[in-house]
Amino acid sequence: MKIAVFGTGSVGQALATRLAGLSHSVTMGTRNVETTLVRETKDFHGTPAVAEFVTANLSIPLKSYAEAAVGAEVIVLATKGDGSQAALEASGNIDGKIILDISNPLDFSKGFPPTLFISNDNSLGEVLQNAFPNSHVVKTLNTMWAGLMVNPRMIEEDHTVFVSGNDAAAKATVKGILNSFGWKDSEVLDLGDITTARGSESMLPIWLRIFGATQNGAFNFKIVAAKPA
Amino acid sequence: MKIAVFGTGSVGQALATRLAGLSHSVTMGTRNVETTLVRETKDFHGTPAVAEFVTANLSIPLKSYAEAAVGAEVIVLATKGDGSQAALEASGNIDGKIILDISNPLDFSKGFPPTLFISNDNSLGEVLQNAFPNSHVVKTLNTMWAGLMVNPRMIEEDHTVFVSGNDAAAKATVKGILNSFGWKDSEVLDLGDITTARGSESMLPIWLRIFGATQNGAFNFKIVAAKPA
Repeated sequence: MKIAVFGTGSVGQALATRLAGLSHSVTMGTRNVETTLVRETKDFHGTPAVAEFVTANLSIPLKSYAEAAVGAEVIVLATKGDGSQAALEASGNIDGKIILDISNPLDFSKGFPPTLFISNDNSLGEVLQNAFPNSHVVKTLNTMWAGLMVNPRMIEEDHTVFVSGNDAAAKATVKGILNSFGWKDSEVLDLGDITTARGSESMLPIWLRIFGATQNGAFNFKIVAAKPA
Repeated sequence: MKIAVFGTGSVGQALATRLAGLSHSVTMGTRNVETTLVRETKDFHGTPAVAEFVTANLSIPLKSYAEAAVGAEVIVLATKGDGSQAALEASGNIDGKIILDISNPLDFSKGFPPTLFISNDNSLGEVLQNAFPNSHVVKTLNTMWAGLMVNPRMIEEDHTVFVSGNDAAAKATVKGILNSFGWKDSEVLDLGDITTARGSESMLPIWLRIFGATQNGAFNFKIVAAKPA
């Protein structure tokens, strides 16, 4: 499959390398290639600077959003939440494309932990779906650390990944990608239409507090139920 | 221990009977005893009407908030979120008391699923702690169905209950109560001070969507982590 990964941070790098390793044709998209390539500081996760990443992954070209999107069936949205809509707006015609949206509406302007700039009675997933009604936004993977997204078997037991979206075929394609990362069908919880992204995006506040309390980001939520009586 | 349980719905009934069964001296508090006793409709959970509950549980007297609070070391706040502060305001002097706060800031005014009337950069737990600075608010148990709160072993494997609060001694008392319900120490995740209630209260949107997708409320979240490398 031809897949464009938008965003060059830890999430974008993890998704791009994993998808390329699965033999997809992956292009990485960014706002401005020149600016991105001179941004040399590693982030606090130790994610490589983009230039270093590009050098180490010659099969994954770095292009503008519009160039990266050409011919892509799926756009993986691994942008910062406040850049998600602008990235799609810069992508040219994305009608019919699947937007695998991992971005979260995090607002770091008031320090750490961040708040959400969209929440409660709306979600970033919905905002994007409304802005691009002819694309198929599927919200998923946004509730965990990048390493677990693409390698869920780092956790021994089963755990849960949520999926929200309006289009059944798009969700099926996304679930196939999740399966290829190692997610079992029984771990994929389809919450329903894109309004249910309000649920998964609202997990960021608890994610951040658990990370704060445990100092370990390599965790996830597992939904466990009582046995029927 | 003398414990006042505020709220007569499914959460209040579950907590009151479980605590009484553990030999605590339990009083149930309500805004107006006469009005509460004539409210005969069962709720959609099948929770008994209050008059029926009172008749079946003669060891648990129903009193006004102020009368129920007299001498109580712990107030279990199982009120609807929009009645929590008013209930504490009606309680007389609650300085020094532990407020075991299960209430959630749910706003049902726009239909189902509800939104939150406090969220993101604040929490109901914090609002209550600020309103009653000489009491010790401990937010816990608010992320699950009432049956699981008091009988966690209904789920075979381990799962997680969050605790938030400013006062270490009050949290220790609350953890002791959780242990007595069947919660293991390893299942109790202390998130930190009362501001971390923003995390647990923010789980209601995902709780509601999981319930919507699975039609099973007898589930909980288990935090699972990768083994250290």
